[in-house]
Amino acid sequence: MTKIPYKIYLKESEMPKEWYNVRADMKKKPAPILNPGTLKPVTVEEISPIFCEELAKQELDDTTPYIEIPKEIRDFYRMYRPSPLVRAYELEKKLQTPAHIYYKFEGNNTSGSHKLNSAIAQAYYAKQQGLKGVTTETGAGQWGTALSMACAYFGLDCKVYMVKVSYEQKPFRREVMRTYGASVTPSPSMETEVGRKINEEFPGTNGSLGCAISEAVEAAVKNEGYRYVLGSVLSQVLLHQSVIGLETKAALDKYGIKADMIIGCAGGGSNLGGLISPFAGEMLRGENNYEIIAVEPASCPSLTRGSYAYDFCDTGKVCPLAKMYTLGSGFMPSPNHAGGLRYHGMSSVVSELYDQGLLTARSVEQTSVFEAATEFAKVEGILPAPESAHAIRVAVDEALKCKETGEEKNIVFGLTGTGYFDMVAYQKFNDGEMSDYIPSDEDIRKSLSKLPKVD
Amino acid sequence: MTKIPYKIYLKESEMPKEWYNVRADMKKKPAPILNPGTLKPVTVEEISPIFCEELAKQELDDTTPYIEIPKEIRDFYRMYRPSPLVRAYELEKKLQTPAHIYYKFEGNNTSGSHKLNSAIAQAYYAKQQGLKGVTTETGAGQWGTALSMACAYFGLDCKVYMVKVSYEQKPFRREVMRTYGASVTPSPSMETEVGRKINEEFPGTNGSLGCAISEAVEAAVKNEGYRYVLGSVLSQVLLHQSVIGLETKAALDKYGIKADMIIGCAGGGSNLGGLISPFAGEMLRGENNYEIIAVEPASCPSLTRGSYAYDFCDTGKVCPLAKMYTLGSGFMPSPNHAGGLRYHGMSSVVSELYDQGLLTARSVEQTSVFEAATEFAKVEGILPAPESAHAIRVAVDEALKCKETGEEKNIVFGLTGTGYFDMVAYQKFNDGEMSDYIPSDEDIRKSLSKLPKVD
Repeated sequence: MTKIPYKIYLKESEMPKEWYNVRADMKKKPAPILNPGTLKPVTVEEISPIFCEELAKQELDDTTPYIEIPKEIRDFYRMYRPSPLVRAYELEKKLQTPAHIYYKFEGNNTSGSHKLNSAIAQAYYAKQQGLKGVTTETGAGQWGTALSMACAYFGLDCKVYMVKVSYEQKPFRREVMRTYGASVTPSPSMETEVGRKINEEFPGTNGSLGCAISEAVEAAVKNEGYRYVLGSVLSQVLLHQSVIGLETKAALDKYGIKADMIIGCAGGGSNLGGLISPFAGEMLRGENNYEIIAVEPASCPSLTRGSYAYDFCDTGKVCPLAKMYTLGSGFMPSPNHAGGLRYHGMSSVVSELYDQGLLTARSVEQTSVFEAATEFAKVEGILPAPESAHAIRVAVDEALKCKETGEEKNIVFGLTGTGYFDMVAYQKFNDGEMSDYIPSDEDIRKSLSKLPKVD
Repeated sequence: MTKIPYKIYLKESEMPKEWYNVRADMKKKPAPILNPGTLKPVTVEEISPIFCEELAKQELDDTTPYIEIPKEIRDFYRMYRPSPLVRAYELEKKLQTPAHIYYKFEGNNTSGSHKLNSAIAQAYYAKQQGLKGVTTETGAGQWGTALSMACAYFGLDCKVYMVKVSYEQKPFRREVMRTYGASVTPSPSMETEVGRKINEEFPGTNGSLGCAISEAVEAAVKNEGYRYVLGSVLSQVLLHQSVIGLETKAALDKYGIKADMIIGCAGGGSNLGGLISPFAGEMLRGENNYEIIAVEPASCPSLTRGSYAYDFCDTGKVCPLAKMYTLGSGFMPSPNHAGGLRYHGMSSVVSELYDQGLLTARSVEQTSVFEAATEFAKVEGILPAPESAHAIRVAVDEALKCKETGEEKNIVFGLTGTGYFDMVAYQKFNDGEMSDYIPSDEDIRKSLSKLPKVD
C-alpha cells in the first residue's frame, strides 16, 4: 500500500475548475429567501441593488450542479491553494488511537482562514460588473481581512463596518485591513441611518454583527457603484466554499481513502457547508454514506437548540428573510472567544440538510475547546483559531472513542484557520480565567418568541 | 517547455536528508571562536557546559560537508516542510518586468518564520542528551516562539528571556510561547546576576538582545540539566538552516531553472546563510556562479559599515568571541521595526564569505522597505515580516532594473516570515508616522573603538 504522506497536496492540474452546488442534488430544496417587505420569494431583480448581479443569480440557482470557476479566480486560488490535506500522524500518536485523522488546513494565507475562497469570488464578480467597490461587516475580522485582500487584488474600494468591540480589541486585524487599503469603520457608526438610530437607542453600545450588516447594506444601497457582500450564511458563499470539499475529496481519492466521518465547526455554515458539499452530494445521490457532524459553541447553539423557521438575517431587518435553524435575530450570545461562531442563525442549505438528517450536530463548551486547541498546537505545530478548535474537540473525542472500540475510522475535519489574532483568548485560557457560558432555556425561548410570522 | 507552477513543492521523498555544511568547502575557513577568558580557540569540552554536546561538535566542525538530519527531526520537518518555492507571477505582472521572480516562503508555520528549522534540531539534541530543558533569549519573539514549539514537541522545559520592551509591546508573541508551555521572563530580570547588575546600573532599562543572551547563558550554566540555545549567528544554526537552500536548489533543479541572483535579509545571518549555502558551495567548488546579495537595515549596517574583527557576542561578555563584521557589541541600533535585524554582528560564516567576495551587501531604509512590503502583500497575498521585506525591497529594485535592460534574470529571494505580530509597525507606516534612522559615522566609530583587542 502507498504510504500516505503527512500532507497531501494536489497538483495545480488536479485543482477544481468548477464549484459544486449541492442544492442541485437536493430533492427537497432549501426554502427560498423572502423579500422582507412582501414576504414573497425574492427575484434576482429585487436583490440586485444589494448584491452583484452574478452573485444574485448564484444565490437563487438551486438547479445547476457545477458552475465554472472563472480563470481570474483560479489564478488567485493558485497563490494559496491547493491547501494541504494533512494526516495528523502526531496527534494520532499522542492519542494512541487506531483512527486515522486528517484535516484540511485552510489557514495558510494572510486572512488566516477559508474566508478568502469566497472573498475573491465576490470581488471578482463586482469588478466584472464595473462596480467601484463593495461594503461588508466583520466581527472577529477574518472575513474583513479576506475581503480587503481580494479587493486590493482587483483594485476595488472596500468599506468594512467592524463591530465596535472588535475594532477596539483587535487593532491588529484592523491594521491588516488598512494595509490592504480598506477603510474600516467601527459599528454602529454615525455614517448610516441605522447606525445613528442604534447609537441613539443604545448609547455606548459595543455593536453586534447583525447591526454591522444593516449598516453595510445601507451603505451599499445608498452609494452609487457599490454592492454588499457577505462572508457566510448565503448559498453563494457555500457554493464558493465547495472548493474546500472538492479538494478534500480529490486528495482522499488520490490515495484511495474513504472518509468515515467528516467534522466541521459551524457558525453561519460557510466552512462546514463547503467542506461537506461533495460528500453530502454523494449521500443525496445515494452513492455513498458518511457521518457528518456540525460542531457549534454551547453559547450559541442554533442547530442543537434553535428553531427551524424563517427569520431576519440582520438586526436592522433590511436583508431578505431566510428559513434556517435560528436562535432569533435578537439573540445575544453570551461572551465567548470564537467570534466567528456567534451568529444567531445557520445557512439555509446546512439547515435543510440537517433537517433531512444528513448531518448531526453537537455543541461544545469553550474551555474544553481550548484544551483541545492547545493539545493540537503542541503536537501538530499549528495554533488553531478558536472557531476551528471546535472541530478539533470533536475529532479528538471521536478518535478517543475509536481507541475504546478499536475501530480504524478515517476521521476528516476542517481546520479553518489560525489563531494568531486570538491571543487574548488564549491568554485567558493560559491564565485559567476562561469560563463557559450556556444560555438558559428561558433566554432562548424569549428570543424565539420574537420570530417573524411567515406562513 | 514545462510550465512553471505558482508554487513548487518537493515531494516528501525529495526532501533533504542531510544538512550541508558550507564551511567544509571553504578553503579559508571562518576564524575560530575564542574562549573569552583565554582568547584561545574554544574546544568542545570548554563550550559543553553552555551548549549541548552534539551542537558543540557541529559548531566547531568545519570539515564534514554533509551531516545527516536525524529521523525525528525529519518527521517534524514534514509537518511544515517542504516550504513552497513560489513563482511571483503576480508581482512580475505588477512590475511589468521580464525578470522571473521566485521566493522561498518560510512563514507557513506557527512560529511565523524559518527559525523553527534550527529550533527543532537544537531541541532534539538536548532531548537526546537527556537534558531537562533549554534557555534562550528572544527579541521580536520569532525565535522564542519557534523554540517553545520545538520544546513542547519533545517535552523539554523552555525558559525564554524576552527583551523587556518586546515583552511589553508584543504580549501576543509572549502568549503564543506560553501556550506552548514556555516560561517567559522580561529581561533584564532580577533572576540572574547579570540581570540584577544591569538593572542596578541602568534602572528602568528596556533591555537589549545582548543582555538577554547573557541572562539566558547564566541560567543555563547555573541550572543542572539545562543548556543554552541560540537562533542565529552560530555556525550550527546556519548548518540547520541549509535546509532552506537545499530545498530551494532542488525545486529549481526540478524545473531546470538556473538562479542568477539570490537575495536574503541579514540580521545575524541565519536565513541568508541557510539560503545561500548550497549555492555558495557551488561557487567555492568552482562549479557555478551566482550574484548573492545580503540586505540589511540602514539602521544596523554591520556588513556595509562595520569592521571585520573579533568581538563579543553578548553585552555581558560571557559568550565566546567571534570574528565577524560588527558594529561593536555596545552598538545601540536606533529604533526600527525589523526586530530580527538589530543584532550588532554577523555570522562568522557569512562574514568570511563576504570578505572573500562571494556576496555583496546592501543597506535599505525602513520606509522604502514597508513600501515594498505593502506592494508585495497586495499582489502576492502574503503580509511579510518587516525583516523579510528587506529582501523584497532589493528583489523589486533588481526586477525594475531588468525592466530597464530587458534582461530575463531569475531572481530568487528568501521570504523568511509573516508580519502578523508586527502590526504596530504597519500601523505606523499606514499612518505616515514611520521615519528612517541612520547612525552617524561618529556613532559607529565610537562603538567600534571599544572592540576587544585580540591578535
